[in-house]
Amino acid sequence: MLDLYHAEPAANSLKVLLAIKEKGVPFTSHFVNLHEFQQHEPWFVKINPNGQVPALVHDGKVITESTVINEYLDEAFEGPLLRPVDPYGRARMRIWTKFVDEYFTPALSFIAWHHMIRNITDKLTPEELEAKIARIPLKEQQDKWRTSARQGYTREQLEEWGRQVRVSIQRMEKELAETPWLAGAAFSLADVSSFAITAGMPRVSPNLVNAKDTPHLMDWHGRMSARPGVQAALAMPNPVRETMEAGRSKMASILS
Amino acid sequence: MLDLYHAEPAANSLKVLLAIKEKGVPFTSHFVNLHEFQQHEPWFVKINPNGQVPALVHDGKVITESTVINEYLDEAFEGPLLRPVDPYGRARMRIWTKFVDEYFTPALSFIAWHHMIRNITDKLTPEELEAKIARIPLKEQQDKWRTSARQGYTREQLEEWGRQVRVSIQRMEKELAETPWLAGAAFSLADVSSFAITAGMPRVSPNLVNAKDTPHLMDWHGRMSARPGVQAALAMPNPVRETMEAGRSKMASILS
Repeated sequence: MLDLYHAEPAANSLKVLLAIKEKGVPFTSHFVNLHEFQQHEPWFVKINPNGQVPALVHDGKVITESTVINEYLDEAFEGPLLRPVDPYGRARMRIWTKFVDEYFTPALSFIAWHHMIRNITDKLTPEELEAKIARIPLKEQQDKWRTSARQGYTREQLEEWGRQVRVSIQRMEKELAETPWLAGAAFSLADVSSFAITAGMPRVSPNLVNAKDTPHLMDWHGRMSARPGVQAALAMPNPVRETMEAGRSKMASILS
Repeated sequence: MLDLYHAEPAANSLKVLLAIKEKGVPFTSHFVNLHEFQQHEPWFVKINPNGQVPALVHDGKVITESTVINEYLDEAFEGPLLRPVDPYGRARMRIWTKFVDEYFTPALSFIAWHHMIRNITDKLTPEELEAKIARIPLKEQQDKWRTSARQGYTREQLEEWGRQVRVSIQRMEKELAETPWLAGAAFSLADVSSFAITAGMPRVSPNLVNAKDTPHLMDWHGRMSARPGVQAALAMPNPVRETMEAGRSKMASILS
């Protein structure tokens, strides 16, 4: 019994969908609609007390945190290896997935959040929004929702996150100029983590990710996009695509 | 050939010293004095371009990030296992080490930084300090030094980090009420990560960590402190103890 609770194929949900499809493990998909705040509903908080997707339930055992879930999927199931066979290769992979989790994703996520959140919150009255926020288990997440929905972030903050995104892109380009995949000679979870947040960038931020400035990243993006597992993950149902696209076009400006 | 570049046995340097001593792997110790900004000197930036300790060099291969180094040490060398034998146990361990890295440590680190930094920076003229800061490879770290040395953090920020430290302590207590070690039945890198930042807390923050409020944490702390590997790590040379102690007593107030 393997149940995956996830949102649309983007960011951390895409990260796990990529791994599970690359691995070829059969699973039951449970779509959690973040635009309807379903991740904070009591039934889901029973599964993950932090009220966050993705979450994996395997034979009754709950595993959270997308990066941890991916290493678990690779270690617990048969199928193609998603980690290097040697300890040094695995260390390189983990340095990279950690960088994506602690630096690249937060920067990109705050920018995305800033531009997309009103598409969600503007549909609610202030009272409805506050009721949604009050139900969020983590205080940090409550603060993030309140700040974003009310005053938004400052230009200075957005520019600093933009700088961090550019640093991250440059680091990817530099790494991929030296080795075909981000943790060395073989495809690994380092590529999975990075693709989960850069999948849309050649289209959404062509000023930043393009054949002239980031040729190795573009080549890697092409090889990633051609993988059947990647295509299967990206083809997962996406009922919130329209709202996301509206946010993405606004977002492109800060990253140009 | 195994070379470890580390600071005094505290925080992330202690984390790796604990693992390497528990594992019983012989290594060459290189003390990097953070109070003299040695981690930003050109010879060290050649080893770790981010200018951060700890860093491990094994047969010429550099591994950074204390949490990644610890998994590497466990996978690459003989000796007692520092990770659970089953994938689910390892997932639990990684959820915990991730929590320590992304939540508990940053909160504690900002508070410690706020109270200790002036003990270092007050010895320098503004020009000397700016010269030290200009040499720091990461802009985020430059900003942290400038903010701390100049205006410090706000009461609101310090209180929020204090809250996060209390949440972390409560989470440890809750977990240790259910299982003897943080990732289950066996000692693991989850315990190593957590002890690296809580080793001094029963003494420095007795209002927060004590036999009445956190009995399971105190029991775990006693079992950890009795381990020969832990004692060997804590006994590593500490030429900056005096400066640290001066900061610790100031720090205790915010965590009471």
